Amino acid sequence: DARMGVLYDGDDWGFTSRARLQFNMSGETDGGLTFGASFRVNDEGAQSGARQASTGTRGTVFIAGDFGRLAMGAPAGAAEAAVGDLYEVGLTGLAFYNEVDYLTGDGAGINGAWNPTVLYSYTFGDFSFYASASDGNNAGGRVENPATDEGSQDYSVAVAWASGDFKVGVAYESSEVTTVAGGVATTADTQDQWVLGGEATFGDFGLKAIYVNGARNVAGGVNTYDYEEYGLSGSATFDLVTVTAFARETRQEFPVNTLSNRYYGIGARYDLGGGASLVGGIGHRDVEYGSALNAPDTYGDFGIAFRF
Amino acid sequence: DARMGVLYDGDDWGFTSRARLQFNMSGETDGGLTFGASFRVNDEGAQSGARQASTGTRGTVFIAGDFGRLAMGAPAGAAEAAVGDLYEVGLTGLAFYNEVDYLTGDGAGINGAWNPTVLYSYTFGDFSFYASASDGNNAGGRVENPATDEGSQDYSVAVAWASGDFKVGVAYESSEVTTVAGGVATTADTQDQWVLGGEATFGDFGLKAIYVNGARNVAGGVNTYDYEEYGLSGSATFDLVTVTAFARETRQEFPVNTLSNRYYGIGARYDLGGGASLVGGIGHRDVEYGSALNAPDTYGDFGIAFRF
Amino acid sequence: DARMGVLYDGDDWGFTSRARLQFNMSGETDGGLTFGASFRVNDEGAQSGARQASTGTRGTVFIAGDFGRLAMGAPAGAAEAAVGDLYEVGLTGLAFYNEVDYLTGDGAGINGAWNPTVLYSYTFGDFSFYASASDGNNAGGRVENPATDEGSQDYSVAVAWASGDFKVGVAYESSEVTTVAGGVATTADTQDQWVLGGEATFGDFGLKAIYVNGARNVAGGVNTYDYEEYGLSGSATFDLVTVTAFARETRQEFPVNTLSNRYYGIGARYDLGGGASLVGGIGHRDVEYGSALNAPDTYGDFGIAFRF
Repeated sequence: DARMGVLYDGDDWGFTSRARLQFNMSGETDGGLTFGASFRVNDEGAQSGARQASTGTRGTVFIAGDFGRLAMGAPAGAAEAAVGDLYEVGLTGLAFYNEVDYLTGDGAGINGAWNPTVLYSYTFGDFSFYASASDGNNAGGRVENPATDEGSQDYSVAVAWASGDFKVGVAYESSEVTTVAGGVATTADTQDQWVLGGEATFGDFGLKAIYVNGARNVAGGVNTYDYEEYGLSGSATFDLVTVTAFARETRQEFPVNTLSNRYYGIGARYDLGGGASLVGGIGHRDVEYGSALNAPDTYGDFGIAFRF
Repeated sequence: DARMGVLYDGDDWGFTSRARLQFNMSGETDGGLTFGASFRVNDEGAQSGARQASTGTRGTVFIAGDFGRLAMGAPAGAAEAAVGDLYEVGLTGLAFYNEVDYLTGDGAGINGAWNPTVLYSYTFGDFSFYASASDGNNAGGRVENPATDEGSQDYSVAVAWASGDFKVGVAYESSEVTTVAGGVATTADTQDQWVLGGEATFGDFGLKAIYVNGARNVAGGVNTYDYEEYGLSGSATFDLVTVTAFARETRQEFPVNTLSNRYYGIGARYDLGGGASLVGGIGHRDVEYGSALNAPDTYGDFGIAFRF
Repeated sequence: DARMGVLYDGDDWGFTSRARLQFNMSGETDGGLTFGASFRVNDEGAQSGARQASTGTRGTVFIAGDFGRLAMGAPAGAAEAAVGDLYEVGLTGLAFYNEVDYLTGDGAGINGAWNPTVLYSYTFGDFSFYASASDGNNAGGRVENPATDEGSQDYSVAVAWASGDFKVGVAYESSEVTTVAGGVATTADTQDQWVLGGEATFGDFGLKAIYVNGARNVAGGVNTYDYEEYGLSGSATFDLVTVTAFARETRQEFPVNTLSNRYYGIGARYDLGGGASLVGGIGHRDVEYGSALNAPDTYGDFGIAFRF
């Protein structure tokens, strides 16, 4: 895929463009299992740091059959696979304000980028079941570093139900980050949350809502807090034009004050045919801490997106 | 493409080889616009640093139609698109002594590597018009860094005329580099130049000449200077053999002395068919500063070049 | 290719997966020479450091004809091309305990990773002749660094004889590492070794043995030592299952004591068809220094390997 356009970052305009290519490989065993792997050229790139498809921390590898589907590498976590994000706006994603704050999978959460993830999914009638986990070793688990062996771990389980125009998902995520000093695991931050999502699709109209409720326990108790997150997004297609919008808020209940982040976005896409679209959008964030409102942040972009 | 051979770097011989692969993607909208993107695997590589096709600072993305052609990413600047370089010699380019010192586009100039560039070109009969610019934001314009927001900027405009065996191009380039200290833009170096080029092609013979005249103003006045650059190159093909040569000189008129760089090169290519060629060449640089001649530098190479 | 599974690193289990893709390009000249190049996406990746197919230190480029085959880039050295390694076990290679300690080629040896290598091979009846060398310049020989110009050099020659079920190879390798201080080459470590290998293949059974005898001379004499290495591996295929095992020992005769490393491995592969296999293995290392046995190290893995 590729795109070219302009991006407003809250202060001034700049150019934005990119060109990418994804490889999808697949096969089938004699016993009828399907398998495959996919990654992009830039999953091996300089900016991906030590995360690479060739070391299992980008891209995905999967095998599927009657038993379900097992994916490794950097798949989404179970919660994200079952519930997903609000509808995206803009050419570049506009800081991805539409994305739910998942704890696990795909580089997400305090456990972060370096843990390879496994995702198991199984569909039975209208129900789909998902489970995912990182392996609890740092550095991809290939070589043991005794000083950091007490690795961080996360996991997630989720169920989704889909029937006709409706889809509902509920998920639980848990993440534990172990800090090691002098070869001894001394502290552990834990965070866990419930994620609830629902989506309705009526022909050219779509509506999606999410709700998150969780708590973070920081070792030593400082900054331990409960939090909530809720969001709503809608999409409507009129002939060649699709309009999308979302609103999302996160509330972190610190002992003294509440930190609120409010995100809004609206965008439109005009289909030029042949894989090309004119795409533009605006995204905005307000931050409220206690009674003071500060740090608004606005992004805007416009350009052409290509699929090949 | 690929190549393998030996390289003399002025002191001793070494091996040289490389293997690369370029992806070209293209499509067409329902309205008849063509679009596409191209980049090489190594445009995402470790040695490309933060410049990557996936972030718009390597490779190109384009859309073209009756309005002309618009390219983003790392296209050549307008001046280079209209005039181009002298004929290249050797298997490896031999330090690319044949290349004109363009200010803008494709990682060139004092504005340098990190600015994404946009190039617009339009052809009307025998005339082609080119305009290019960087976006004036550092770091690709994606995320705003307040301390460096007063970004550097360059632009270029050019006209080329081509008819039968002859082609002429004239271009103007301007580059401004802003230095920021303590969040305040304090100094700005500017550089601008005119580029003139002409090429004649008679059957198997080609002749090309370039002339550059410019000035660099360094903030504070130290090292402010005028400069000139002129070059000539020729190419002749006899059956399977092509011989190419060039000479180029740059003269920077510093207050006390003149710094001259003289570049020479000659090379030959023997077509083996099927995309393979035997290629070799010699390149040489003399540096003259004031009355003292110093730092000569000679490169030579020989080997096989492949296209697949 | 791709793989997914679990890996035991001597202390605990982790996930392991990867997805890769290799590009193979080839062509033929009008005179009937064949040529080509091959490299993987991750040969340009962030973890490959400065070694890249685009700069001739990963991947290979070759040309072949009646004169033999000439390959550049990162081919195996002559010794490895003629004799090869013991049979590999496990999904991930399990620290590659089965690999012979070759001095030259493909990033091997004290001359190491940064020297591009050329490998010439010629087959005449049952005999094959191999010769390889690095170019004696550091940094790939492209740009001269006066301080390190007295580069390190290695070379290798080998002969292999193959007839029916039997194959025998003998090779000599020599490596010299020059240390430069203050622009002057002051010290040179040298290392050279003989490698002997034999393999017999009877239907579904294979047996392979190697023997290495060499000496390392460290400038100044400290740590100068002789060494030996011997290894044996076998493979047996029963219908869809292949079982492989190896044992290898290296003995370095230091003035006071002998450092012995003993490596063992066993693994199995079950062919699922269509390019997929269930693969698992165990690898183990014992280190003996003088009379004290220390630092055992055990790896185990199990998972699915895919070829596309």
